[in-house]
Amino acid sequence: MKNEKQSSVEIIRITFEQMYKEFYRILLKYNFTPEKANICAGIFSESSLDGIYTHGVNRFYGFIKYINEKCIIVDAEPVKKNSIGAVEQWNGNLGPGPLNALKCTDRSMELAKEFGIGCVALSNTNHWMRAGTYGWRAAKAGYVFIGWTNTIGIMPAWGAVDSRLGNNPVVFGLPFNNEAIVIDMALSQFSYGKMEIAKSNKAPLSVPGGYNKDGVLTTNAADILESRRPLPVGHWKGAGLALLLDLLATVLSGGFSTHEISKHKYEHGISQVFITIDLSKLGSLPSISNTINQIIDDYHNSIRESGSAEILYPGERVLKTRKENLLTGIPVNKIFWNKILSL
Amino acid sequence: MKNEKQSSVEIIRITFEQMYKEFYRILLKYNFTPEKANICAGIFSESSLDGIYTHGVNRFYGFIKYINEKCIIVDAEPVKKNSIGAVEQWNGNLGPGPLNALKCTDRSMELAKEFGIGCVALSNTNHWMRAGTYGWRAAKAGYVFIGWTNTIGIMPAWGAVDSRLGNNPVVFGLPFNNEAIVIDMALSQFSYGKMEIAKSNKAPLSVPGGYNKDGVLTTNAADILESRRPLPVGHWKGAGLALLLDLLATVLSGGFSTHEISKHKYEHGISQVFITIDLSKLGSLPSISNTINQIIDDYHNSIRESGSAEILYPGERVLKTRKENLLTGIPVNKIFWNKILSL
Repeated sequence: MKNEKQSSVEIIRITFEQMYKEFYRILLKYNFTPEKANICAGIFSESSLDGIYTHGVNRFYGFIKYINEKCIIVDAEPVKKNSIGAVEQWNGNLGPGPLNALKCTDRSMELAKEFGIGCVALSNTNHWMRAGTYGWRAAKAGYVFIGWTNTIGIMPAWGAVDSRLGNNPVVFGLPFNNEAIVIDMALSQFSYGKMEIAKSNKAPLSVPGGYNKDGVLTTNAADILESRRPLPVGHWKGAGLALLLDLLATVLSGGFSTHEISKHKYEHGISQVFITIDLSKLGSLPSISNTINQIIDDYHNSIRESGSAEILYPGERVLKTRKENLLTGIPVNKIFWNKILSL
Repeated sequence: MKNEKQSSVEIIRITFEQMYKEFYRILLKYNFTPEKANICAGIFSESSLDGIYTHGVNRFYGFIKYINEKCIIVDAEPVKKNSIGAVEQWNGNLGPGPLNALKCTDRSMELAKEFGIGCVALSNTNHWMRAGTYGWRAAKAGYVFIGWTNTIGIMPAWGAVDSRLGNNPVVFGLPFNNEAIVIDMALSQFSYGKMEIAKSNKAPLSVPGGYNKDGVLTTNAADILESRRPLPVGHWKGAGLALLLDLLATVLSGGFSTHEISKHKYEHGISQVFITIDLSKLGSLPSISNTINQIIDDYHNSIRESGSAEILYPGERVLKTRKENLLTGIPVNKIFWNKILSL
């Protein structure tokens, strides 16, 4: 871990069980039922185990803060508000984002089981934490997953300086060898979380991540955090796609757009879409698996640029990190962990 | 038009009717039925009218070449090979790509009318030309559109030098004020077509578009055309997404992957996905329209960077270009046009 070399940041290793137990304890204290505390603690711990610290352990304290701010209503339940065959609209009633999102992923798979494809659009929900959680969930159950969320405004339109677009993470996933291939990508080149880490490490970003206050592209995370102008992936392309994903999440769910969400101090009441397709109906699973293996084998056989790291498919690094963290414990910033223990 | 200022390239203006008539004449000569010639000539002319010259008039000669090479089978018809509720798999039988894709878009909308959402996955088809064609078609009929295609290998995996990924254009669209908001984006920062134009104009790309043969990012299109290493949008993100879209198009359609397609000299037998959602069932259309207008109004109100061009939503420039080209004629490279006339 890069952080472990930084004298300013002390990293400790926490076992998966220890982390889960701590989250579970705190969630019970905040009036989660044992069942919901179990699911939610599981999602936070598994994301951390998989190396997605920014949306796992590093965000748990903020999750509790949002409960205290009453942006997250602990005992709210998502409710179906409209049903049209394979499409359903649900109201998240400001319940915990991961619980709402998991419910809608599972419901989408039920629809896909019945109709081949299912779509659940969820309004009035909260941050689902790691977007990939729902892609892995569906893919490991044998489904294709396409889903996305809108967010509060944190990225400018192309040619603009003020942040009226969300970075609207989007997920595509499918099953692979009892695990999954899942891409989970925000439409900014780097998340604010990653830029904060680069800033505190005084490390340059690997590619330009946004503009400084003079409108010049830079790899200096501190300058981008100051200007609040992260770079969309593919410049105008990612900015345009972010707009489309917000429009679709809003219209499909009948929920709030980034524009509406941004009127509040804290991000809440967001909109999400969960599309799944039942792969088992589209051919024999061994034959599908064989096709996927051929594509991945060819991909792995790419000729590497000299000095380039291993060529991994989206989700492949997760498996390596998971294995490593199971063995050695999950690396956690000691200050963050102590804040969690104090809850 | 930038090209008009270049002494080396003579641009002439062709009316929409004139262009359509010429395409129609040639397609009849190549054994298209009058009905199919009409649809196909319409698609090529409309893409050109909308300013998407690279996938309209500039590609018509190549389209005929692919017919001569027997990659495109003029009288082949797409056939349904599997039906699972709202999901269908079709075999394009190597028919003309735009005809197959239009058929599958329309079939997807029929499924969406019945089930709320529809998905048609098409194997063994050919280049659909302008990806946006199908997004505009569905959106103008009141549907959300999500669709993509795979392509022959033209982009390296992240960290690789050989092109094993397609740039797999993806489209998201929805209705807006009797027209549409449609993003139609290949996953390379620039298409080879755009880089060819920049090279012939000796103009730098607006942002780095790939690597030169020494592995250095560059805005010099000629260098990228030489190295064959275009940059994926968002670096590793676009490369990962391209892999996922290929996997999904292949698995959903039961068709060929980029890996298989790349074994042939000419790109043919590709795989595509057409997902549509019937918006009319998700709320009153005036209320949906009102929501979209609010989002677009806010987007347009972005604070522009000094010196920045107008802030347009994806598809907005198309409307302006269409209007202009209807008035003044469609700008065409005279050499390209004469090649078409010779057919």
